[in-house]
Amino acid sequence: MATALADGGDPTNTMMMRNKQVLAKDYITGNPKQTDMYLSVTTIKPYLEVDSNNDVSVLVKNLYLSCDPYMRGVKFNTTKVQDRLFNSFAPDSPIIGYGVAKVLDSHHPEFRKGDLVWGVTKWEEYSLITDSMTDSLFKIKDADVPLSYYTGILGMPGMTSYAGFYQVASPNKGEFVFISSAFGAVGQLVGQFAKLMGCYVVGSAGSKQKVELLKNQFGFDEAFNYKEEHDFDAALKRYFPQGIDIYFDNVGGKMLEAALVNMRLHGRIVVAGMISQYDVDPEHEKGVKNLLSLIYKRIRMEGFTVYDYYHLYPKFLDTVLPYIRQGKITYVEDIAEGLESGPVALEGIFAGRNAGKQVILIARD
Amino acid sequence: MATALADGGDPTNTMMMRNKQVLAKDYITGNPKQTDMYLSVTTIKPYLEVDSNNDVSVLVKNLYLSCDPYMRGVKFNTTKVQDRLFNSFAPDSPIIGYGVAKVLDSHHPEFRKGDLVWGVTKWEEYSLITDSMTDSLFKIKDADVPLSYYTGILGMPGMTSYAGFYQVASPNKGEFVFISSAFGAVGQLVGQFAKLMGCYVVGSAGSKQKVELLKNQFGFDEAFNYKEEHDFDAALKRYFPQGIDIYFDNVGGKMLEAALVNMRLHGRIVVAGMISQYDVDPEHEKGVKNLLSLIYKRIRMEGFTVYDYYHLYPKFLDTVLPYIRQGKITYVEDIAEGLESGPVALEGIFAGRNAGKQVILIARD
Repeated sequence: MATALADGGDPTNTMMMRNKQVLAKDYITGNPKQTDMYLSVTTIKPYLEVDSNNDVSVLVKNLYLSCDPYMRGVKFNTTKVQDRLFNSFAPDSPIIGYGVAKVLDSHHPEFRKGDLVWGVTKWEEYSLITDSMTDSLFKIKDADVPLSYYTGILGMPGMTSYAGFYQVASPNKGEFVFISSAFGAVGQLVGQFAKLMGCYVVGSAGSKQKVELLKNQFGFDEAFNYKEEHDFDAALKRYFPQGIDIYFDNVGGKMLEAALVNMRLHGRIVVAGMISQYDVDPEHEKGVKNLLSLIYKRIRMEGFTVYDYYHLYPKFLDTVLPYIRQGKITYVEDIAEGLESGPVALEGIFAGRNAGKQVILIARD
Repeated sequence: MATALADGGDPTNTMMMRNKQVLAKDYITGNPKQTDMYLSVTTIKPYLEVDSNNDVSVLVKNLYLSCDPYMRGVKFNTTKVQDRLFNSFAPDSPIIGYGVAKVLDSHHPEFRKGDLVWGVTKWEEYSLITDSMTDSLFKIKDADVPLSYYTGILGMPGMTSYAGFYQVASPNKGEFVFISSAFGAVGQLVGQFAKLMGCYVVGSAGSKQKVELLKNQFGFDEAFNYKEEHDFDAALKRYFPQGIDIYFDNVGGKMLEAALVNMRLHGRIVVAGMISQYDVDPEHEKGVKNLLSLIYKRIRMEGFTVYDYYHLYPKFLDTVLPYIRQGKITYVEDIAEGLESGPVALEGIFAGRNAGKQVILIARD
C-alpha cells in the first residue's frame, strides 16, 4: 500500500510515502458524525531523522484502528473532565485513537523495526509517535490470536474490564454481580470474567436483542432491557432478591440510585462510567439519592480509569490469553475495511449499528 | 450505693438490690427530649442464677454512661436503617447505650468478678448483660487513665475515629484533610490523628466558638463556620487551593457535593455519617451531584461503621494510650453527676449545651 514518491527537491527527502488520513473538521460536542471528519492525503518520510537527544520517536504503519465509545466530545465544556490522556478531535488534525501497528523505524529503546505494537496512534496510514505518546505503546508478543483483538479484548477495553473487575471490585466466587450497559465492550467482558469466577451475573442493556445475546451468547444468568422498566428498584429486587455484592456501573444516575438500596453488606460499586451524565448540563444535574446506603451497608464505591492499571498488563495477558485460546470467552468483532470507512464506522457505534467491537482494517501487515 | 432489701418470700431471692433506671416512654423520632424519658426504681439480684448451658451472662455495676449523637430516632421509618446493633429507645425499657462498668458476677469465660469493662450497657445502676450483648463488652486493662475515657476517646467514638482515619482513609504524611462536623467527638479526634501524622487539617463546624476551639485548642490548621458560607465550593477552594486528599464526611448532602469537585486525584472520601440526611423525608431527598468526579479523580468513597473494626481495638490502644499519656491529644469531658441527670444531659448534646464529651457519672467504683 505504501507508495514511494520521487522528491526532486531536498536531498534529505529523496523518498516520501503517501499518507492517507482521516481528520477532524473541528472540536466536537457529543457524538461524532461522519460529516465531522474528512479524508486527506499527505506524505511522510519512510524513516526517522537522525537521533537527537532523548528522542524516543517511533514511526509505525497502522494495521487496525479502533472505534471506542470514549471518542466523543462532552456537550458542556467543563473543567471537570480530566480523565483523558488525549482528545480524539482537534481542528484539521488526524483523529487520535487506539490501534494496532507495525514499527517501521524507532529511536525508542523498547521498540525495534518489525515489532508489532498496540496503543494510541492516529487515523492515518503511517504515524509518527513522539514524546510521551510513546508511553501508550505496548509491544505485542503473542500474535497467535487475531491482531485486531489488541484493539479490544486484549487492548484498552479488555484491560479496563480486567482492572475494574479483578482489581477494583475485589470479587469472590458466588457473589451477585450487576452490570449496567452490559452489552458494551467492557460490560460483556466483565460479565464473562464474573461467570468464569463463579458469580451470578445480571446485565442491563437498551434493547431486546442485546438482552437476548447477553443471555444466550455471552452466558449472563439474566439480563433485562432498562427501557422496559419503569421502576429500576423493583427490577433489581426481582433479579437480586438477596441483593447485589458488586455493581459495575457504566451509567450512573437513576440506575446507580436504585443499585445503592439493593446492595448487600460490604458491597462494592465500581464506577467505570456514567453514560447517563456525560451530556447533562451541570445546571440541570439531578443528583444521586440513597447515598446513606454507603454507611448502612458499608459500601465501597470507587471510580477508576484504566491508565492507573497498565502495569498489570502482563498479568492481564496471563489471565485472558488462555481464556481466548481455550474458547472460554466470547468476543465478536465488526471489521470495516479501509481508512475511508472510518467516519461511517465511528458514527455507527453511537447509533448501535455495529455488530461487535468496531475495528477498521487499514493493512494486513 | 447498693441497698440490700430483705425479701421475706422466695427463699432463692433473700437479698435484692435497689436498681434505679432511666426508661424511655416510647420509641422516639428525631432528637430525644428529657420528657421522652422517666426515672423508676426496681430491684435486681446481686448475683447470677446457677449456670445453664451456654450462658454467658454478666452482671455489672454501671460507673459511667455515655451520651452519643447516634442516640436518637430516625424521623422517617425506613427499612434502610441497618447500621445499628441495638436501638437506644424502646417503650418502658431502660435506655441502651455505651458505658463503663464493674463486673459483679459472670458466667462469661472472658470476664471475672472485679473486672472493669466498657461497652453496651443500660441506663441503670446495675445491668444484666446477656447473650450476644456480651459481644459488645471489652475488658479494661489500662486503668491509669480516667475510666470515663472509655466512653469516648478510648471507647466507641475513639475507635470510630481510628478505624475511619487509619484504616479507611489510607492517610499519608503531608496530605490535605478536610473534616466536616469537626467539633464532634469523632471529628476532633480524626483531626488530631491527622495532625500527628503530619497532614494539613481543616474542619467545618456550626459556630464561631467551635471554629476558634478547633484552631486554638485542637490544633487544626484552619476551620470555618459552614453557616457563614453561602458557597461551600468557594469555601473549600479557599482552604484547599491544591485540593483535598481525604474528606472525612460526617454530614453528606451539599458539603459532600462541594467536596467531590475539590478532591485531588486518588482522593478518598470516608463516609462516617450524613447528619444532613438523617431526618430528610425520602420523598424530598435532594440527591448528591458531582459524582462524575469519582471517575475523573479516581476517588474511593467508602462507608463504614465501627462494628467492623473492633478486632483492631488492641492496636488502637497501642496507638492512642501513649498519645494520651504524653499529652499529645486534647480531650475534653463534660461529666454530669447521677443517673437522674441523664435525660437532661442527653437532650443537651443535641442542643449543643455540652462542653466536651458528655458523660454521666453513676458510681466511682
